[in-house]
Amino acid sequence: MAAIYERVALIGLGLIASSMSHAMRAKGLAAEITGHARSAETRRIAAEIGLCDRVYETAAEAVQGADLVVLCVPVGAMGEVAAEIAPHLRPGATLTDVGSVKQAVIEAVGPHVPEGVHFIPGHPLAGTEHSGPRSGFATLFENRWCLLVPVEGTAPEAVARLRRLWEEMGSNVEEMDAAHHDLVLAVTSHTPHLIAYTMVGVADDLRRVTDSEVIKYSAAGFRDFTRIAASDPTMWRDVFLTNKEATLEILGRFTEELFALQRAIRTGDGAHLHEYFTRTRAIRRGIIEAGQDTAAPDFGRIKVGS
Amino acid sequence: MAAIYERVALIGLGLIASSMSHAMRAKGLAAEITGHARSAETRRIAAEIGLCDRVYETAAEAVQGADLVVLCVPVGAMGEVAAEIAPHLRPGATLTDVGSVKQAVIEAVGPHVPEGVHFIPGHPLAGTEHSGPRSGFATLFENRWCLLVPVEGTAPEAVARLRRLWEEMGSNVEEMDAAHHDLVLAVTSHTPHLIAYTMVGVADDLRRVTDSEVIKYSAAGFRDFTRIAASDPTMWRDVFLTNKEATLEILGRFTEELFALQRAIRTGDGAHLHEYFTRTRAIRRGIIEAGQDTAAPDFGRIKVGS
Ligand SMILES: NC(=O)c1ccc[n+]([C@@H]2O[C@H](COP(=O)([O-])OP(=O)(O)OC[C@H]3O[C@@H](n4cnc5c(N)ncnc54)[C@H](OP(=O)(O)O)[C@@H]3O)[C@@H](O)[C@H]2O)c1
Ligand SMILES: NC(=O)c1ccc[n+]([C@@H]2O[C@H](COP(=O)([O-])OP(=O)(O)OC[C@H]3O[C@@H](n4cnc5c(N)ncnc54)[C@H](OP(=O)(O)O)[C@@H]3O)[C@@H](O)[C@H]2O)c1
Repeated sequence: MAAIYERVALIGLGLIASSMSHAMRAKGLAAEITGHARSAETRRIAAEIGLCDRVYETAAEAVQGADLVVLCVPVGAMGEVAAEIAPHLRPGATLTDVGSVKQAVIEAVGPHVPEGVHFIPGHPLAGTEHSGPRSGFATLFENRWCLLVPVEGTAPEAVARLRRLWEEMGSNVEEMDAAHHDLVLAVTSHTPHLIAYTMVGVADDLRRVTDSEVIKYSAAGFRDFTRIAASDPTMWRDVFLTNKEATLEILGRFTEELFALQRAIRTGDGAHLHEYFTRTRAIRRGIIEAGQDTAAPDFGRIKVGS
Repeated sequence: MAAIYERVALIGLGLIASSMSHAMRAKGLAAEITGHARSAETRRIAAEIGLCDRVYETAAEAVQGADLVVLCVPVGAMGEVAAEIAPHLRPGATLTDVGSVKQAVIEAVGPHVPEGVHFIPGHPLAGTEHSGPRSGFATLFENRWCLLVPVEGTAPEAVARLRRLWEEMGSNVEEMDAAHHDLVLAVTSHTPHLIAYTMVGVADDLRRVTDSEVIKYSAAGFRDFTRIAASDPTMWRDVFLTNKEATLEILGRFTEELFALQRAIRTGDGAHLHEYFTRTRAIRRGIIEAGQDTAAPDFGRIKVGS
């Protein structure tokens, strides 16, 4: 297929950027891909495995001449990167990002965007617990949603072009406003991650149960939480600090419901528990019917060591 | 191989019993398998798919002449089933169970066990989110732990024989006392399940985010919780009602830690969050090294619809 963009600059070369590179390459969606990451080590790996046609030492160099610039750094770093590259953006270029929070990115990046550059915030709902330049793969975005959050007055052709890129990488694209995005993600992603981190922290803390017991007997449920709680600490610190309000709201509701269930356990209210546990089953069915997860037992996970 | 038991009676014919049946058959561990389940429908399915050599209408009939009886019913039903079968147990037989809680089962079943019958409570740490007679498979117990909780004074030969059965079905067997079992499982299984149920309940409740959004965008983390929260409501109601004390203790610690993280978010204490999220990563590595989960991204789960 003819390339959708002539030169794509990826700033930050971790899981998302490397997956984009593989996906764009697999289908010839970008004539050229440049890149930059903060550390020399990541840049070295990116060069070694050929992630980009050219890896630059600075973000400013990497974006020169690009008609698409994608910010693939942690949410908390978006503002400083935007400030650095702003003077070097080509007029008519599109600037997008893949950050997990949208209002904070718009506030941090928006003010730096020069006249004539199309700023279209985005967020692919696709990831794994791994990170870094070696963790990407071309099919990461297949059959996953990508949310675009265009700010008011954005040129429709620019949005359509970016949408086409995501669609060609396998995503289903939807548009949404930033505040709603942040609330939806607080429910479907941010709060679940915080809770998983907490559960794993509790297990790790408990003196009367040893770490080795927690590890040995983890297949009874706990290990699912550890996958999520193995995600990148910097990325997640930034998510919680920048989507504070929505996360705290959902956490408040979570605590309320948890207290109600706790009370039911204490008072022996089996009917309440049974009814609650029956209701939550339906959501799982919905997710499987929507093609967002497998019905295979245990995710059809690969059994190790057997 | 020569059968370890002459006649094994499975009382309750759901996920665990049907997996035991397939596993014993695959290796000829039982010369004969009888079975009973409460509903005519389950008994009909069990007969249709040949789960047992004979399916009986009552538990009393099913256990007659058996040298191993396995209680595979929800924890809350163990006492009444034990009372019913007690007069029909063969002297010298072993009575075991697979319940997820051990102190409550010992209290409920113990008093009914006749002189001359070896009562050896057990718990295979293996399961999936599916239930019923069709959900079992022969490899469920492979490379999983099975905990035996023999009560004082149990004949060592009887314990050794039961241990051999579980080992031949692929499990690693360990002995533990009942109170410690219930605490360890509260950490590695019961509390994680309650928390997953709660998170799914919260998402389902939220008016400002629709169910269809929760479902569509679930791959960002939430869907992992829905798998666990799709487990059988009766089984889990019974677990919480019978392992009340340990579950409430771990929930208390969970809430404490959650509040600390919540405060860190509110006050913008990024260092605390980063440090916490870094610590929890190590546990995941331990689980993978111990062969209790796969290192493949996303559990190596099968991607649907792509
Ligand atoms: N992982 C997911 O599941 C997921 C899903 C959807 C969206 N996102 C979002 O995607 C973005 C990237 O996440 P990721 O998973 O790809 O992260 P990652 O694998 O940890 O990679 C992050 C990259 O950003 C670079 N970086 C960090 N700070 C920088 C700075 N100040 N200047 C320049 N580069 C910097 C890092 O460079 P070094 O390697 O040199 O440190 C690294 O190359 C985040 O905003 C995240 O919220 C993640
Ligand atoms: N699922 C897991 O992940 C897992 C893991 C380890 C241990 N366990 C424990 O294993 C036991 C069985 O769980 P499971 O997952 O196999 O459950 P399941 O698939 O829901 O099957 C339960 C079976 O028990 C029968 N039953 C229920 N109440 C009964 C009664 N009063 N009298 C006779 N039969 C009765 C049911 O009969 P009907 O079909 O006729 O209702 C059904 O055949 C539970 O104690 C559970 O705690 C479960």
